[in-house]
Amino acid sequence: MSPGQALVELRGVAPLVHCITNYVAMNITANALLAAGASPAMIHAEEEVADFVPVAGALSLNIGTLSAPWLAAMLKAATAANESGTPWVLDPVAHFATPFRAEATRRLLAQGPTILRGNASEILALAGETGSGKGVDSGDSVAAAEASARSLAKAQGCIVAVTGELDFVTDGNKAARISGGSELMPRVTALGCALSALVGGYAAVAPPFEASVAALQHYAEAGRLAQTMSDGPGSFAVHFIDQLAAVTPGDFSAGAVVWD
Amino acid sequence: MSPGQALVELRGVAPLVHCITNYVAMNITANALLAAGASPAMIHAEEEVADFVPVAGALSLNIGTLSAPWLAAMLKAATAANESGTPWVLDPVAHFATPFRAEATRRLLAQGPTILRGNASEILALAGETGSGKGVDSGDSVAAAEASARSLAKAQGCIVAVTGELDFVTDGNKAARISGGSELMPRVTALGCALSALVGGYAAVAPPFEASVAALQHYAEAGRLAQTMSDGPGSFAVHFIDQLAAVTPGDFSAGAVVWD
Amino acid sequence: MSPGQALVELRGVAPLVHCITNYVAMNITANALLAAGASPAMIHAEEEVADFVPVAGALSLNIGTLSAPWLAAMLKAATAANESGTPWVLDPVAHFATPFRAEATRRLLAQGPTILRGNASEILALAGETGSGKGVDSGDSVAAAEASARSLAKAQGCIVAVTGELDFVTDGNKAARISGGSELMPRVTALGCALSALVGGYAAVAPPFEASVAALQHYAEAGRLAQTMSDGPGSFAVHFIDQLAAVTPGDFSAGAVVWD
Repeated sequence: MSPGQALVELRGVAPLVHCITNYVAMNITANALLAAGASPAMIHAEEEVADFVPVAGALSLNIGTLSAPWLAAMLKAATAANESGTPWVLDPVAHFATPFRAEATRRLLAQGPTILRGNASEILALAGETGSGKGVDSGDSVAAAEASARSLAKAQGCIVAVTGELDFVTDGNKAARISGGSELMPRVTALGCALSALVGGYAAVAPPFEASVAALQHYAEAGRLAQTMSDGPGSFAVHFIDQLAAVTPGDFSAGAVVWD
Repeated sequence: MSPGQALVELRGVAPLVHCITNYVAMNITANALLAAGASPAMIHAEEEVADFVPVAGALSLNIGTLSAPWLAAMLKAATAANESGTPWVLDPVAHFATPFRAEATRRLLAQGPTILRGNASEILALAGETGSGKGVDSGDSVAAAEASARSLAKAQGCIVAVTGELDFVTDGNKAARISGGSELMPRVTALGCALSALVGGYAAVAPPFEASVAALQHYAEAGRLAQTMSDGPGSFAVHFIDQLAAVTPGDFSAGAVVWD
Repeated sequence: MSPGQALVELRGVAPLVHCITNYVAMNITANALLAAGASPAMIHAEEEVADFVPVAGALSLNIGTLSAPWLAAMLKAATAANESGTPWVLDPVAHFATPFRAEATRRLLAQGPTILRGNASEILALAGETGSGKGVDSGDSVAAAEASARSLAKAQGCIVAVTGELDFVTDGNKAARISGGSELMPRVTALGCALSALVGGYAAVAPPFEASVAALQHYAEAGRLAQTMSDGPGSFAVHFIDQLAAVTPGDFSAGAVVWD
């Protein structure tokens, strides 16, 4: 399925994305999903997540503001997703920052996410390439992050999507690079978190590799357009939501995806 | 009290609205209340809700991201509101989605909310009209939702306000339809949740039926104006907050309220 | 260090500010820090706060939507900050509203915050000047709030920053008044909460008195500029974030800081 076809499917189906995400990201995640064409559902109580997951088209987990009760709910939700065949995305925010979140990430990864979405330092650290989790920006580091993503995808048997200076999707063998976006995107909080949920939305209507590519292209194109209209990170965030809604399949076909 | 008079009262008194609401809605709820003319207070800990309710002009409860400790706090707050004669609003978000929230809604309804605010599928499901809770959009369904709202208002002894394609307020006998709004409103998350808090704000300064009508008219007019200025759901959300502040009592008198 | 020099430092270092703040404020706090030049980290679980504090340049605590588990985490984080010599800010939101938050504030103050940031009624109530915590707006009250801030700073051995109609910073002896800002700022929720985090960001790169003055000037100048572009509180919030990013050290040198 082409990214443009995936967008048509997304808007036709408006899949329900069950998000268990962080407090900072909740509002913009819901608005990004609605603007792009999906439907958000934020439900996190341990008492109800397993009842809701089978109703949703996809599940998206994000450990940004993790706590023990939320981790318990995430683990239950991941189990329910596996049982119901619901695709699920893991966003291991700053998993290297404390032992608590490192252990949580280990347990969530063991459940077998369909797609893993992170920035370069998160993916490098998961692949064991660095002990520090420090950011990587240089050309060498881009190559290292791509290699880490490939090895992590093979080891985990999942799709890995790396975003940031580099946008890269791989299943361990085939891979895609996505260009576009805006230098203002890292100046707006939680855009990466919201992207993980949008990857989930696409995964409800397309195979996981194609879904990841389409979500990253949708984001990159909306970011590129929004930057031309913005005076800073505040107005960028507003225009970005508008452009998530305005992007068309035709914009996707003009995107620069390179298949390795 | 006319809706225009209620707006004058709202801005004169700036009533404190105690909100126990969901994480997605908190920020826009506070901003909508401030823009419209009320004052928000988000306080949810079981240890303090009963101390705070009597200080507030109204209480607004919303189960969007419910959990066991928050439900306990909502039940305590509702009890305190009943004891102090504080009007309170219940927004039973997706109460049909899981047994956990269905049971929570049953317990909160048993406490006797002053006003119940929901969308058509939520009100239909509460009135026992559907088992599925699926959305309703057709003309037949509008009539069914209005009939459900009337029967629910009678059974509960409260005001029922239904919003969406249809905006309808009833005490079981008298009723009002409110027109206006914007097709972009469902594309912005949590606007319905924030409306429930604004209904609470008006209920602090006007009788509950009149308060509900005024809040829905305030929203509909701000939505109508904001749409004319917007390029998508992102900019709509910004203009909508501006217009909640800009709307005047004169705008209300031009609104199309039909009393049955 | 001059406020303009502090801004250069802030943008050069981009210090990590560990925030344990309220749900309403989280998103705008993160966006304000990113726009101004710092880096936000929202981490609140009791299991991990002590591991993260030493990594951060500053800690900012805000009791807006307090609960028992969050208070436990705040106390652990404050202890960790004291042990690692990390500057920390306390924002005692509406501490007078319930016994629960009054007691929480007493315990947090006993830990010795580096900087205390509040509005006039919060500072007056902490200094024992009023039992009611009612707002103060008159000229007499401004003098009372400044006197309260001075006595509180001496008693606590910390910097006290009061914001609102009056912007005032003192260590108990020397003091500064900051002018500027916008009458729209109280119409946007959580701007004061976000300011407390920005005070933390500056405290990571400048001494606490100078840091507080610089943060308040940064805010006041961004608010002044944003008001000229805005049609109401919704658009003001957007322009304010843009202007936090756009403000330059030159804008600071034009600010009216009076040293007593």
